[in-house]
Amino acid sequence: MEGFISLEKENSSFAKLDTGRKNRTGFNEVVYCQGKTSEQVLQIFTALYKNNGTVMGTRASEEQYETLRQQFSECTYDKTSRILKIQKDKETPEGLVAVCSAGTADIPVAEEAAQTAEYFGCQVNRFYDIGVSGIHRLMACKDEIQKANAVIAVAGMEGALASVIGGLVKVPVIAVPVSTGYGAAFEGLSALLTMINSCANGISVVNIDNGYGAGYIATQINRLAVRGNK
Amino acid sequence: MEGFISLEKENSSFAKLDTGRKNRTGFNEVVYCQGKTSEQVLQIFTALYKNNGTVMGTRASEEQYETLRQQFSECTYDKTSRILKIQKDKETPEGLVAVCSAGTADIPVAEEAAQTAEYFGCQVNRFYDIGVSGIHRLMACKDEIQKANAVIAVAGMEGALASVIGGLVKVPVIAVPVSTGYGAAFEGLSALLTMINSCANGISVVNIDNGYGAGYIATQINRLAVRGNK
Amino acid sequence: MEGFISLEKENSSFAKLDTGRKNRTGFNEVVYCQGKTSEQVLQIFTALYKNNGTVMGTRASEEQYETLRQQFSECTYDKTSRILKIQKDKETPEGLVAVCSAGTADIPVAEEAAQTAEYFGCQVNRFYDIGVSGIHRLMACKDEIQKANAVIAVAGMEGALASVIGGLVKVPVIAVPVSTGYGAAFEGLSALLTMINSCANGISVVNIDNGYGAGYIATQINRLAVRGNK
Amino acid sequence: MEGFISLEKENSSFAKLDTGRKNRTGFNEVVYCQGKTSEQVLQIFTALYKNNGTVMGTRASEEQYETLRQQFSECTYDKTSRILKIQKDKETPEGLVAVCSAGTADIPVAEEAAQTAEYFGCQVNRFYDIGVSGIHRLMACKDEIQKANAVIAVAGMEGALASVIGGLVKVPVIAVPVSTGYGAAFEGLSALLTMINSCANGISVVNIDNGYGAGYIATQINRLAVRGNK
Amino acid sequence: MEGFISLEKENSSFAKLDTGRKNRTGFNEVVYCQGKTSEQVLQIFTALYKNNGTVMGTRASEEQYETLRQQFSECTYDKTSRILKIQKDKETPEGLVAVCSAGTADIPVAEEAAQTAEYFGCQVNRFYDIGVSGIHRLMACKDEIQKANAVIAVAGMEGALASVIGGLVKVPVIAVPVSTGYGAAFEGLSALLTMINSCANGISVVNIDNGYGAGYIATQINRLAVRGNK
Amino acid sequence: MEGFISLEKENSSFAKLDTGRKNRTGFNEVVYCQGKTSEQVLQIFTALYKNNGTVMGTRASEEQYETLRQQFSECTYDKTSRILKIQKDKETPEGLVAVCSAGTADIPVAEEAAQTAEYFGCQVNRFYDIGVSGIHRLMACKDEIQKANAVIAVAGMEGALASVIGGLVKVPVIAVPVSTGYGAAFEGLSALLTMINSCANGISVVNIDNGYGAGYIATQINRLAVRGNK
Amino acid sequence: MEGFISLEKENSSFAKLDTGRKNRTGFNEVVYCQGKTSEQVLQIFTALYKNNGTVMGTRASEEQYETLRQQFSECTYDKTSRILKIQKDKETPEGLVAVCSAGTADIPVAEEAAQTAEYFGCQVNRFYDIGVSGIHRLMACKDEIQKANAVIAVAGMEGALASVIGGLVKVPVIAVPVSTGYGAAFEGLSALLTMINSCANGISVVNIDNGYGAGYIATQINRLAVRGNK
Amino acid sequence: MEGFISLEKENSSFAKLDTGRKNRTGFNEVVYCQGKTSEQVLQIFTALYKNNGTVMGTRASEEQYETLRQQFSECTYDKTSRILKIQKDKETPEGLVAVCSAGTADIPVAEEAAQTAEYFGCQVNRFYDIGVSGIHRLMACKDEIQKANAVIAVAGMEGALASVIGGLVKVPVIAVPVSTGYGAAFEGLSALLTMINSCANGISVVNIDNGYGAGYIATQINRLAVRGNK
Repeated sequence: MEGFISLEKENSSFAKLDTGRKNRTGFNEVVYCQGKTSEQVLQIFTALYKNNGTVMGTRASEEQYETLRQQFSECTYDKTSRILKIQKDKETPEGLVAVCSAGTADIPVAEEAAQTAEYFGCQVNRFYDIGVSGIHRLMACKDEIQKANAVIAVAGMEGALASVIGGLVKVPVIAVPVSTGYGAAFEGLSALLTMINSCANGISVVNIDNGYGAGYIATQINRLAVRGNK
Repeated sequence: MEGFISLEKENSSFAKLDTGRKNRTGFNEVVYCQGKTSEQVLQIFTALYKNNGTVMGTRASEEQYETLRQQFSECTYDKTSRILKIQKDKETPEGLVAVCSAGTADIPVAEEAAQTAEYFGCQVNRFYDIGVSGIHRLMACKDEIQKANAVIAVAGMEGALASVIGGLVKVPVIAVPVSTGYGAAFEGLSALLTMINSCANGISVVNIDNGYGAGYIATQINRLAVRGNK
Repeated sequence: MEGFISLEKENSSFAKLDTGRKNRTGFNEVVYCQGKTSEQVLQIFTALYKNNGTVMGTRASEEQYETLRQQFSECTYDKTSRILKIQKDKETPEGLVAVCSAGTADIPVAEEAAQTAEYFGCQVNRFYDIGVSGIHRLMACKDEIQKANAVIAVAGMEGALASVIGGLVKVPVIAVPVSTGYGAAFEGLSALLTMINSCANGISVVNIDNGYGAGYIATQINRLAVRGNK
Repeated sequence: MEGFISLEKENSSFAKLDTGRKNRTGFNEVVYCQGKTSEQVLQIFTALYKNNGTVMGTRASEEQYETLRQQFSECTYDKTSRILKIQKDKETPEGLVAVCSAGTADIPVAEEAAQTAEYFGCQVNRFYDIGVSGIHRLMACKDEIQKANAVIAVAGMEGALASVIGGLVKVPVIAVPVSTGYGAAFEGLSALLTMINSCANGISVVNIDNGYGAGYIATQINRLAVRGNK
Repeated sequence: MEGFISLEKENSSFAKLDTGRKNRTGFNEVVYCQGKTSEQVLQIFTALYKNNGTVMGTRASEEQYETLRQQFSECTYDKTSRILKIQKDKETPEGLVAVCSAGTADIPVAEEAAQTAEYFGCQVNRFYDIGVSGIHRLMACKDEIQKANAVIAVAGMEGALASVIGGLVKVPVIAVPVSTGYGAAFEGLSALLTMINSCANGISVVNIDNGYGAGYIATQINRLAVRGNK
Repeated sequence: MEGFISLEKENSSFAKLDTGRKNRTGFNEVVYCQGKTSEQVLQIFTALYKNNGTVMGTRASEEQYETLRQQFSECTYDKTSRILKIQKDKETPEGLVAVCSAGTADIPVAEEAAQTAEYFGCQVNRFYDIGVSGIHRLMACKDEIQKANAVIAVAGMEGALASVIGGLVKVPVIAVPVSTGYGAAFEGLSALLTMINSCANGISVVNIDNGYGAGYIATQINRLAVRGNK
Repeated sequence: MEGFISLEKENSSFAKLDTGRKNRTGFNEVVYCQGKTSEQVLQIFTALYKNNGTVMGTRASEEQYETLRQQFSECTYDKTSRILKIQKDKETPEGLVAVCSAGTADIPVAEEAAQTAEYFGCQVNRFYDIGVSGIHRLMACKDEIQKANAVIAVAGMEGALASVIGGLVKVPVIAVPVSTGYGAAFEGLSALLTMINSCANGISVVNIDNGYGAGYIATQINRLAVRGNK
Repeated sequence: MEGFISLEKENSSFAKLDTGRKNRTGFNEVVYCQGKTSEQVLQIFTALYKNNGTVMGTRASEEQYETLRQQFSECTYDKTSRILKIQKDKETPEGLVAVCSAGTADIPVAEEAAQTAEYFGCQVNRFYDIGVSGIHRLMACKDEIQKANAVIAVAGMEGALASVIGGLVKVPVIAVPVSTGYGAAFEGLSALLTMINSCANGISVVNIDNGYGAGYIATQINRLAVRGNK
């Protein structure tokens, strides 16, 4: 069976890095930085970078970035998406993924999705602030969106965006509910329910604010469209 | 203070009919028939008809209709909307109310709304099966919908309909969530949340399946538009 | 189709301002300031002010106000309602909207509603602290409230206010649940459910704390009552 | 410690009747009939009647009544409240309890409360169909309600009734949410939340549809008012 | 109809103090201080003190106390219960109320209940930390608790306390769920549900953390037991 | 790796019976009969009986029993617990498990637990109708309950039973919430929350109505107490 | 803009069939039969069959099938999946989709997914009853599952299936929660939450019991893998 | 009946320490430190230490530790688990408990469980970061886990861990949901539901983040396995 690297602190293993993941799933392990100490993030990045030659972290803080930068000068950090990464040799992007968002407040999650897909080698087009209450903004982008191999629809209170897009394209729409809004938005729960109940076909949903997950799935689909399953 | 008629059964008052309502609110009392026995409905209809010269009931059953018909030959019943009424002299309809619905399954609630508004004297136009997953169906009706003084948007899983309409019209949109759908539709709760969180302006929401309430409010607005507040 | 202004930052569009909105809906676009940086608010206000000659923002912070004030000396800010606006030439107010609230804690939301309606040209009367546990306070205002073309009922734990008012007036009541209260108030959810289930007719509901939305709808109705639908 | 009677079926004890209850709490044990077989109800009634000389059951079915009637000709059953009882010698009722209800659909629960209080020796006055959407109906009864030692407020969607009464009386109001209503009434949950959040003082709440519980508490209070605590 | 005092700020009424309340309900108005500014609390206390000669506030902060103390040297504040009051002439306490609590963390709410009842003239006995997981602690107090005219049961995760007490006493038990606990305690919701579903008779429930409400109702019952209804 | 038996219907495998389970877990596979056709149950029983020499099904219907009885005359069915089984050679029961329940309505679930433990070889003592509202009934059984190696506490609205028992015994208490009750019992959810929040130690919870699961765990513990872990 | 066929009954349009859908989305319209009368289904099938030459309905009843069969002898119906269709010329299936399910009770939803994918031209492999409580059953199928272009994971209480599969494959996993289970399964809500929170990558979720939606998305992905985006 | 120590502050008892607990349950009382002042913790520790010779507190803060350390130099504190204790003479650990956790973020709760079991005399083995999305990590530990007398499974979003382990071992699995995760994790509620619905046998659940409770139950089981019930 496949192996893993056991990270220890005070003689106790606190993490088991999955070194067989690229082989099994086609993707290297990515680090969820929230809730980890800067020291833990450093230890995990060091091990993964040594093993894989590249490493990405999501939901990273500026403090974590400062710690990593002292060890890895090539490390970069994007404040909007909170993505932290060390990536030396970028491949030429392939295929096309469209990332759409309803309002300005949804951009951080949309960027997490977009930059994840880019990190994994996709060409990405962004369509922001095209919520359905001004439907002509979405219609103006329709032809461009239809060119993508996968579409990501990011929306908070306006969960309706995914339904309208779903009725306009041939490819899967990955819907990402966002925890913006107030009152009965219930931290994204209402948007999640809107999207899960969508009357349009071709829509599936990931967790609230999970831009990373949407970018990952869009990449899987984009790769299948470009290379087939191999 | 205003009066009421007390209905009794076995020397105990079981209902107090509000005879001052038309004066206070501009509308006669309407009977919510569900959960009442046919005998109670008959007793209430008889009293209201005698007092007001017209009477309408919602959520009525065919059995209740059969009971009433034996006393009041002019009584009519519509199976889709489940509206039961005795109304002899219809006035000429005034103004215009638009009733829009997303899918075929929403028609019973849409009809309750439409027939309520008609009962109260509105001209009504119906736009059914124009859900947003095929947005061109809604766009084809846009100009007609914009002519109304108030718009009712009835939708189950497709709560998104209200948001798109809200962005296209100048008048209030009364959104009615419907308990169709399955799974995470939660008997209309998801549609209610979608509508309450709508990113479009001008949208307010009534209870799940409350077509009657929407028809009532649309009538209030339509009257204000036609007659002003008097 | 109608146009929009695309705002950019670092060559990426982060907002698409809807310049056709006034034409479609009769209202200029209003800015939801919460969650936006002061810089974004400034950029959006600048563009909208240039295009429309007036601009209003809701849920604004004092910091955002300080930033704007340096560019626009005519900008004003109200701490209670958190409304920020640049409005040079006020029209003479028309019609009448009544804003009622149950308790002292509901005043910020009530003021957001009242000032929104005033911004859009309505005459507004305020009736505060008239909750139903001391019903004589509401009764003392009844005749005044009945003069309005639309009534806004703002209430937190006391969601009951809307029901009592609904039984006393001829015009629509727009109910606004408020996130005050504690324990089983669940941040306004209980008040929302009370209002959605109201036994009175003519009541529709907007999102928790959505004073702006209620002011907008009241304005739509007030305009219809004064001018008809044109 | 106090004793109990163990009822057996096939050598296994299925119920332990609490014979010390009257001594500890001042009330004989009452039987919750729902979910019990007619045979179980008969066995329990027989034992309690033998021990206490009187017995009452709630949520009883007609079938259970038929079974009991064959053994106990003095047994009576009320279809509305679903109360089943054997009570030979009624004492003269003491004090006064007021039972108020909002709508016709709340009567079964209101009757369960009223008949429970009567069974336990209270004088009871009923005030039905006085919901707050026609506030003058409640106001017309105000003086009568104020004479009671305890008030029970029974309401489904109209949870607001308890708040208004609470502001008008000196004695405790026991609020009973009812599972009538539809849509977002959520089987009485919304009414329960309205009542628990009441802005009026002196209101406490029992379970949805728990007329029996409210009648029991009203009796406790009525006894204290008439006899003091002994 | 009864009057009220309207408090104004900048020519706008922000509060309507209910001066007829003592006459209607037997209790002076009490101030819910949370969410009010120190200035508002001062203004309200001044008016009520002038009118009633005594005034109490709940959920007060130390800052509010500091502000009041400068105007009213006789003002007192209790940090545990957060009760703020000006009360010159205490009457001799009458009757007896028992306040029971399950754990140490429930004491602030228990004290709010106890001090409220004392403020309104009750004799109060306290029984703290007698949760059911060590049932002998409760049993040791049983005889003392049974002497009270009303029992308040305050409990967080241990909602079970009310059920056990309910089976031991003749008088009403007012149950107060508390927002202590963690995880699935859901800020007191679980305790509320436990109490509402209690299998014991004689238990009614007030809002989460509403010690004040429980103290008020216990006072109503205690007065009825001592004086009857007059 | 371990094997399984694949059951087919029309050339498609509909079930994979886990033949390695006894080896891995010490228990043969048990059949959850609800939602399966009589034919499916027969096919599964036949295969398991052939492989294991004994087989038990839970939540079985009488119809399923009738079908099985025609093939297996030694098959038995208990109407209360709905357990269906073929078990030829019973071993001598070992150790001791106590099954406690709060009310009469909880007996079906308690019996599912008790008969499951008996099927798996435990000695079982039953203590029914000992809910905490008459705490002396539980106290009377205390010494007997303390003899068991594991205690199962079954309760619907009275979730409090587990807490009180947990404070009296040295061994684990497995709590089973029951879907009896009404109103805010929410089909067992309230009891589940009460139990999960128990202030007593040593209590863990299984799914609502999952008597089988509790019987299984009690057996695991009883075996460890009698035989140790081998 | 694209057209639609308006179906009428009594001069009122009750459905607008979307004839441009194949062009826009690559899929013909499919009929959701639940809640429609047999007559409506017949009318819709007739129109779609005439327009598209093939038509499929989901959640169909046997009664609807009986009605259609009289008009269309080539109509077929599958009792397990409840899929009704008229499809004359099947194309050679392309690519590969894997449909996995956790337990026997999940088969109806799994079949809806599998037969939908087959209807739309996919080759489908089924892996049923491979829930994670007997992990060796899943491991035995691992190599076969990895060959698919898209994987559907159908599970009720065992929402965990999707997570384990997600860690083993390179392609997207579409998770379908199922409304089987009891108690705290909450009609599929618990499985939905498990799946939405999956710690594995590449998993997105559709509505509870929405086998059709999963089959649709799997087809979109399979087509992209076989043909690319054209 | 058993005794208790009453702790007082200002002549009022604020805590009743249960000195009979070890005798009844086999465990000394443990202090839940959260929400208590440092002074209260000191007072309780002093009394318990004097009575029992050892004392442990959970959810302690560093501030509480600093206060205790000044009185008790032998006091120790672990930052990860937040366990505070004074324990002079450790016994030789007996038996074996396995503590498994899914991700790095679950370690604090896992450590609370592990250190609780160690404090009560168990030998403990830790298996961290073995979540099911990389199933080979769990499989690599399988043989070691199977040696334990009880298994604790700690998991946040990955509630699935308990199900897979449950299918691999003969002994009870105590599942601890953790409040990590984001979005629809709902502070641990989703993990709780996953675990309560587990399709594997032998799994019971404690409150979210309740590592202490799991360690306690595992100790009960471990003792039974080593010593039997005495």
